[in-house]
Parts: sequence; structure tokens; C-alpha cells
Amino acid sequence: MIPFAAPVRDLRFVLEELLEHGSLALPGFEEASPDLVEAVLEEAARLAGEVWAPLNASGDRQGCARRDDGGVSVPDGFIEAYQAYAEGGWNGIGVSEALGGQGLPEVVASSVQEMLHGANMALGLCPMLTAGAIEALAHHGSDEQQATYLPKLVEGTWTGTMNLTEPQAGSDLSKVRTRAVPQEDGSYRLFGQKIFITWGEHDAAENIIHLVLARKPDAPEGNKGISLFLVPKFLVNEDGSLGSRNDVTCASIEHKLGIHGSPTCTLAFGENDGAIGYLVGEEGRGLNHMFTMMNEARHKVGIQGIGVAERACQHAFAYALDRTQGRSPRSGRSDCTISDHLDVRRMLLSMRARTDALRALALYCAAQLDVARHAADEGERKAAQARVDVLIPVVKAFSTDQAVEIASLGVQVHGGMGFIEETGAAQLLRDARIAPIYEGTNGIQALDLAGRKLQRDGGAALEGLIGEVEATAAELEASAEHVELGRSLAGGAADLRAAMAAVLEAGADPESGADAVQAYATPFLNLAGHVLCAWQMGRAALKASAAQASGSEEPFYSAKRQSADYAIRQWLPVGRAQRAVIEAGMASLAAFDANPH
Amino acid sequence: MIPFAAPVRDLRFVLEELLEHGSLALPGFEEASPDLVEAVLEEAARLAGEVWAPLNASGDRQGCARRDDGGVSVPDGFIEAYQAYAEGGWNGIGVSEALGGQGLPEVVASSVQEMLHGANMALGLCPMLTAGAIEALAHHGSDEQQATYLPKLVEGTWTGTMNLTEPQAGSDLSKVRTRAVPQEDGSYRLFGQKIFITWGEHDAAENIIHLVLARKPDAPEGNKGISLFLVPKFLVNEDGSLGSRNDVTCASIEHKLGIHGSPTCTLAFGENDGAIGYLVGEEGRGLNHMFTMMNEARHKVGIQGIGVAERACQHAFAYALDRTQGRSPRSGRSDCTISDHLDVRRMLLSMRARTDALRALALYCAAQLDVARHAADEGERKAAQARVDVLIPVVKAFSTDQAVEIASLGVQVHGGMGFIEETGAAQLLRDARIAPIYEGTNGIQALDLAGRKLQRDGGAALEGLIGEVEATAAELEASAEHVELGRSLAGGAADLRAAMAAVLEAGADPESGADAVQAYATPFLNLAGHVLCAWQMGRAALKASAAQASGSEEPFYSAKRQSADYAIRQWLPVGRAQRAVIEAGMASLAAFDANPH
Repeated sequence: MIPFAAPVRDLRFVLEELLEHGSLALPGFEEASPDLVEAVLEEAARLAGEVWAPLNASGDRQGCARRDDGGVSVPDGFIEAYQAYAEGGWNGIGVSEALGGQGLPEVVASSVQEMLHGANMALGLCPMLTAGAIEALAHHGSDEQQATYLPKLVEGTWTGTMNLTEPQAGSDLSKVRTRAVPQEDGSYRLFGQKIFITWGEHDAAENIIHLVLARKPDAPEGNKGISLFLVPKFLVNEDGSLGSRNDVTCASIEHKLGIHGSPTCTLAFGENDGAIGYLVGEEGRGLNHMFTMMNEARHKVGIQGIGVAERACQHAFAYALDRTQGRSPRSGRSDCTISDHLDVRRMLLSMRARTDALRALALYCAAQLDVARHAADEGERKAAQARVDVLIPVVKAFSTDQAVEIASLGVQVHGGMGFIEETGAAQLLRDARIAPIYEGTNGIQALDLAGRKLQRDGGAALEGLIGEVEATAAELEASAEHVELGRSLAGGAADLRAAMAAVLEAGADPESGADAVQAYATPFLNLAGHVLCAWQMGRAALKASAAQASGSEEPFYSAKRQSADYAIRQWLPVGRAQRAVIEAGMASLAAFDANPH
Repeated sequence: MIPFAAPVRDLRFVLEELLEHGSLALPGFEEASPDLVEAVLEEAARLAGEVWAPLNASGDRQGCARRDDGGVSVPDGFIEAYQAYAEGGWNGIGVSEALGGQGLPEVVASSVQEMLHGANMALGLCPMLTAGAIEALAHHGSDEQQATYLPKLVEGTWTGTMNLTEPQAGSDLSKVRTRAVPQEDGSYRLFGQKIFITWGEHDAAENIIHLVLARKPDAPEGNKGISLFLVPKFLVNEDGSLGSRNDVTCASIEHKLGIHGSPTCTLAFGENDGAIGYLVGEEGRGLNHMFTMMNEARHKVGIQGIGVAERACQHAFAYALDRTQGRSPRSGRSDCTISDHLDVRRMLLSMRARTDALRALALYCAAQLDVARHAADEGERKAAQARVDVLIPVVKAFSTDQAVEIASLGVQVHGGMGFIEETGAAQLLRDARIAPIYEGTNGIQALDLAGRKLQRDGGAALEGLIGEVEATAAELEASAEHVELGRSLAGGAADLRAAMAAVLEAGADPESGADAVQAYATPFLNLAGHVLCAWQMGRAALKASAAQASGSEEPFYSAKRQSADYAIRQWLPVGRAQRAVIEAGMASLAAFDANPH
């Protein structure tokens, strides 16, 4: 088995050199020093590499099983690995100290998450969902709810779930039917069925706190009738001890393409007297409350994709550096490793460059999240939030689409061995394939970007980012050794601006605007992802050559420069073609009858 | 379960309208009329849809198992389905009548193969490998070998295998170590281990004829020491009856990502006295003889990818036309099917357009194979063969790369359901993923195109094809309704010519030529695939609008025109970006150290 070495050096490059530890200068992070961050990364890398990663393949093989008693068994070792994580305090790493967390910046929390997802994506989903529940309660829960549930969730003694989907309500949550019937004591009884509930039932924690979208019997149809309810697996007594088992049960678990170690449950609410639940936040505002946490969950899914992409790189590099085959064109030796063949090296560099670029962009977004939450100046906070709003759909969708391609290239590098499950490369592809689907499909992300996010500010936030891309391009062009990178990046920025103008114009048409946004959303997000990632790699090239100019001979910087060169000059051009795709218009899509019979 | 309807209408469009049944005009096909071809397609569609397709999902779930007696059990129903195929005479459909086959053109045989692979790729592999064995024996076997083995192989009573790969010899077959020790009676005893042998052991046929690469004890190292041997599972007596069991056994079967219904075996030759084998063709020419059949096998793998892509389309369209979700921007109704959302429709049209285009190119290649084999004029035969030589790596690699992407899009169209194995979309992705790997990885195909095929004639054959692309582009530009298609296609042709010149020039450098071919091969093949497929869709657009102009109101033609529009104006631009990738040079690849530690 290929061991997993969490990419501490690469993460530090982003945090220290690209982001210049900007988050640590924000109010509230006075106690977090670069040394502390380094120690946190090293410690997380140990947990990821030594405890979580060795269970990735065995967890995939064994999978989860629903027991006759209605419980769900997760793979051997997962409970212990989760508990090691919780006991190490990792669950609260990005949670504020006021809520019992470590209060470290989002850039650090995201770095740790990337390592853990790279180590074991199926297990990483458990705390990812808990984080969403913490977020929702921290923003919308009553004081009493926060006091009762948050400490245990932050510790990780209890885990959380998000219960949105029903068979008829997937991307369109307005169709949610689960009923919440008010009781005299102010609580509710819930009746209904939720599907695709990640870590919906398991024994890894003492209790599970389900956050559930449902509607009161008299609620209006559509979005406005939906409220958010908290439904604990075990009711919680006034003294905080666990009471009786609530009427929510796991009806079945899914047989999935990947993430076999993560139980995906159908939950039945109210098969007997009704599942006791409590309203969270305002009645009729359930979708809004849920989106508070979904926005950050989407960033985390992007991070997850990057974790799996990193692991796919490590597998592919290890194989390509070990497997001898063919004759080297340079040495003429017939025992060269396949990494010596430039066609294979193209695959390796393509995987590496894209993973580097996605990581840099996702952590840039995390740094903006830190500013949006912690900057002293309100204007600064708002400007950062506007960038975050634009970046999150890109980070979610682009990182996960690319992660699937990177994992698939990883299979290809292994040749025939890649198709054999024992090799491990195929699992990464199977696991990665869910990420473009859940937490809002990548199509939904694209609509969010090209529709809501772009139309509401007329593209101002994205225009600000394009301006920064151009500034980096100018800096590259001004430096003798990076002229070509600068030109290519400037071309990308121009394409993105032109495409944005086209999408804004087409989207503003009262007649066809909604269709136009749908038609152009995916190519537009893809173009934005390429340009913004290339931008980050332009910055990486500048930092790497500066380090070399200061005398560093670390091979890391030379590899980073090749990675940047590939990203900007060989990967970006493919993305830039999406401008032509948008400019080709939407006539063929509008005219195409999917059911001509 | 989604039933599979073999795409008879689409295949007929290609055979009748794009290829104008040119193969039927060739010498040797006098008895094959358009009516006969139509009847053959209809009958094959019935076998595919009614007999093979229903076993696809169950075969995946059940998989194969090696029994304690060393035999291998294939999934329930596979033996009967294979026998229905053999008894129907389908195994000999493209084999000449002189060898006992039906003697139909390759275009028809390829059409039938596409249907069968779409129905059940795992089962389709069995006759695909047999076809390779028939090809090798027909070209290189002695009269006696042909008399003994060909009739049973053509009938399908016996099946064939190709035994190339060993643990240390994959893409580089010069490293084959299996030994063939000459015996006094002129036969050989083989000792060694072969891996990844498709349908290497099973009970679906009375006998299995293994074609094995091995070397004599005194043979030189490298390619020239390798010969081809025929090793039957059961020895064949002089009267044609089966004799004793040969010393070749299945040591294990692989646990794979997909094609679970196809047993992938490790075969042990000579664990006891040695496996009795017979030299096929000339000593030391084993690799050449094997490549005779590999070239056509590569075409068949491309066809296989198209079959799976077609099925992925059918699954995705069926789901998208049934699933209601969201509000239609046009009707405003909240019960629209997801096919009404242009973002989903983009995925559907992208899948359909690419599948149409790949099919048209693969069958164009098959038609050129017919000319190369059957044309009366030698010059015509040679010119067609030169095109085939260029087209086969494109058909193999491009069709299979695209098939993976199409199957992955198919998963995406299903949303969360796509990740659930019972839906069936995920299996298509898992199955498709092997096709870019086997029969020469797609990297090897790209090297074959950009290296051997392009360099040996200075690009003449591809230049001829580019000329035809330009002629179609001119025809489109001359027609008022297709001007934009013509412009886009002409631009693609110009890009391909420029890229070809760049690859030829870089490849001719005595110092760096070999590296350059490696560096540019994959982007070059990708560009060629896009341009040649777009060309075929340009021809499809012309034929479809001609049919409409003649009064046809069949919705098929309108759909085909949207498909062509998408292929040329929205898909081709992405491929055209590969010119910029090539022009960016190979410096970053050459400098990148995959092992900087």
C-alpha cells in the first residue's frame, strides 16, 4: 500500500508565501503564531498519515452494514480513528473559542481538512457534516439549544447531519414534504423520509444531532413553508444526560460507487409516535438557515476534492517512479522508470499542477473567509465576503470536477494495474466521483455563480478579482523570466472579462435571461476556475523565483515553477476555449429536443 | 432497469447517408444489399437488446469466480447468451466466406459490435478476443493450423485469447520472458506466467485457443527474440476431437473496477511438464504477427467505447426525461423535467453529440478498412490503408477517452442517484474506464500516431484527411444555413495542420526528436480526434439538412443538426486549444523532476 504523506510543505508554501500568513494578523488570532500553525500542521499530518490513511482501503473493502437492530456498523477501526480525532481536539479547530473550539483561522482549519480528506475521505465526511450542524446552531440556534448541543458537537462527542433530500426533493428543496406537527410543549413531532443522509446512523459517537428541513401542517407550499428542526437521535435530559431513543431510524443504507466507509442512510422520521424535534431559528426560514451552513460546506467539499487529488498524485508519482518500462529517449537505457517518458510525465505534471492550483485558490478563498469574519473594518469584511460569495461555487465545482479528472489520470498512469482494485488508484476515482454531485451539484454551483452571484452585483466582485489577475499578469510580464506566463495569464483575464460581459448581458434579457444563465453557467464557471487557478500559480511562480533569487536551492521551488508553467501555459488554454463556447450562443441547446420520438 | 435499444436508426444514418453504403459496391460484397444490411442490424439489435443487455447489471453484481477445480465461473446467463450469439452465426459476421464466415463488410461488423458492447461490454470482450485470434491465424497460421482451429473459432465453438502481458512486460513487450522449449516433434513446451488475460479461462466454450508471446531458450534479447505460439486449453486430436487438458491453468482472477463479468486471468503455463504449443508464423516475428491483430483489435476497442457511450446516453436521457425537478424558465411550471433546464440539456447534448461524432468517425475508419481489403485497384487499397493506419490510434484513444467522459457526465445527469450502484450509470463509468488502458494505453496510441504513423510518411495520409475536412468546411460555408459551422471547422483544420507541422518538425530533431514526440503526442491526438469527429458531424449536418430540404419531417434530422452544431461550435473549440498546448513547447515537461526529494 502507498502510504499517504500529508502535503505539509505545499500547504506551508500557500499559507506562508502566497498568503503571507495574512489571517494571523486579523483581530482574534493574536495567539496564533506561524510556529503554532506549523506545529498544528505537523500534528494533523501525523493523525492523517498514521491513523486515518491506513484505514482508507480497508474501509472501502469492508464498507458499512445495517444491522438487524437498526444500527449501522462502520468499517473496523473507523470508530477508534474518529475518537482519536475528537480527543485530539481537531473537531473544534476552526470553531471560535467562545464556542469551545480552538479558534484558529479558516486557512488552518481548511489545511487540516484537506489532509484528513486525503487520508480518508469517507471518514472525513463525518466531522464535515458535524461542522455544518455547529455552524447552523451557532448562527440560528436559541441560547438554550446552543448550550445543550454545541459543546458536545464541538468536542465531537456527538456528531451532526444535514437532512435535506427527499425522493421528490433533490436540487429543488421547495418540494420537501416531511411534516412537523406542533406539540403543546412547544416541540414538534416529525413524520417523513429523508434520503442520502451522510453518516445518518452509526455508533462512532454517543449521539447524533439531525438538522431536518420540514414543514408545519399549515405551512404554505414552496420555499417559504420550510422550517429547520433539530432532531436528536437520543433525547437530551435537562441535566445534559442522554434520555430515550427518538423515533428516527435508519431504514436502509445505500450501495454506492465510492466512499463505502461513509454510511449513506435513508432515515425514517416518525414511524411510531413521531420524532421529537425543535424549531431552529425562524419559522419559514429553514432554507435560508440551511444555506448559511451549506455555503461553508461547499467550500469544504472543494477542499475534499483537493485532498483526494493530492492522494491520487502521490499514488501516481510513487508508481511512475518505481515502474520500469521502455527505453528512455535520453539515456537510451531500457530500464528507465516510466516517469522518464514525457508522455507519462505530462500526466504527472498535469495532476500535480492542477492540484497545486486548486489548493492555492481554495486557501485564498479560506483567507478571504477569515477577513470576512474577523477584519476590524466593516468595508473590508464586506468586500471579502463578496469575494467569498463568488469564489465558493468555483472552489466547490471546479475543484471537484478537476479532482475526478486527476483521479482518472492517476488510474491511467498505473496502466493495467490502475484497473485492479487492490492498487488503490481506482478507489480514489470512485470516491472522488461523488464530490461534483453532493452539496449542490456542480450545475447548481454554476447557476449560483452565473445567476445569483454575478447578476446581483453586476459582476463587481468578480471584476475585482479579475483586476488582481491582471496585476499578477503585469508583474509576470515585467519580469524577464516570466514574460510568457504573464501574456498567457493576461489573455485568460481578458477572456474571463469578455465572457462575464456576455453572461451579464444575456442574463439581463427579461425574455430569455433565465435560459441564458442556464446555458452559459457551466462553461463560465469552468473558465473562471481556470483563470483564477492560473492566477494563483502565477503568484506561485513569482514567489518561487524570488525564493531562488534569495539563494534557496530547495528542489521544491524548481518543481513549483514547472507546475506554474504547466498550469498557465498548457492547462489554462484549454479553459480559455470556454469563452468561444459561450460566444457560440445557446441556439443549439434551446432547439435540441431530448425526446424526439 | 433502463432497457437498451440498440441505435439502429443512428447506425443506418451513418451507413446509408454518410457512407452511402460504399462498402457494398466493393468486389466481394455483391450479395450484400442495403436490405440485407438493414435486416442484419435489426436482428443484431434484438440479440443485443433482448438477450445480452438484461445480463449487464446482474453480471456486474455477480462477477466471475475461480473455482477450486481451477475453472472460472462466469455470471449466470452469460454462457447461454454467448451461445445464442454463436449459434446465430454472429461470430463470423465480418469473417470472409472462405474461412466460414458471413463475409459482410467491416462497417456492418463494426455496427453489430457496437450494439453488443453497448448491451454488455463484459460479454462482448469474449468474441472480441476470439476475433483477434482468428485474424492472427488467418494471416500467419500454417494451412494445418488454419484447418484445425479456424472453423471452430469462426463458429464460436472455441474462443481465443491474446497472451502478451507479463508482470515486467506491459507496454514494453520486449521484456517478455515466457520460455518456449522446442520438442523433437516440432512442437514446443511453454513455461511462464501471463497476466491480465481477458476471458483466459471459462466454461462458455468447448475449448480456448491461447495465442502466446514467448521466446526460445536461445533467442536473442529484445523484440527480435519473441515468437508467437498457439497453446490450446485442450489439445486437439488429428480427427479434430478434443484430447487431453494442456498444462495451462488459471492461477487467479483479478478484482477489477469494472467489466466484472469478464474474467481477467493470470495464466500459468507449464506448472507441470510444460504447456504444449505450436509456433505461429515465423520465428522471431511474434510481435509483428501480434500487431497484425492488435491493429484491428484497437479499432474494436474504440467501437466498444462508443457502445458504452451510447448506453450512457440512453440512461441519462431516460432519467432526465422522467425526473421532475425545479421550475422551467420557459413554461414557469414547477413540474418540468430536468431535461428542460438548459444546464442539464447541455450535458445531454454534449453526450449525444460526442457519441454521434465518435460513431461516424469509427465507421468511416471501418469503411476505409473495407476499401483497403477489397478495392480492385491497388493504389486505392494502399491509400485507404494509409488512412486506416492514421485513424486507428485516433479511433481507439479518442473514442475511449471520450467514452469515460460521457459515462461520467451520465452519472452527473442522475444527480445523487448516479452514485447509487443500482441505478446503473456508475457501472458504465466503471466499465468504460478500462478502454483507455488496454490494447495499448491511449498514451501508446498517441505515440503511434505522432511518432510512427506521422513521421514515416511525413504526414501525407493525415494531410489527405485534412484536405477532406477543408472540403467539407468549404461546402458548409457555401451553404447559407451552415456558414458558422464551416468557419469553425475550417479553423479546426488549420489548427490541425499547424500542429502537425510543429510535431513533424520537432520530431525530426535528431537530438530531442524522441522526447518531442512523447511530449506532443497526447495533445496532438486529442486535437486530431476533435477535428476529424467535427468533420464527420459537418457531413452529418449537410446530409440532415438535405433530407429536410427533400421534405423529411423526421425529428431525427433536426436532432442530428443540433448535435452537429454542438459538436462543431461548442466541443471542437475545446479541442482546438490543444494547438496552443503544443505550441507552448515541452520545456516544463523536460525540466520537471518527478522525484525532487
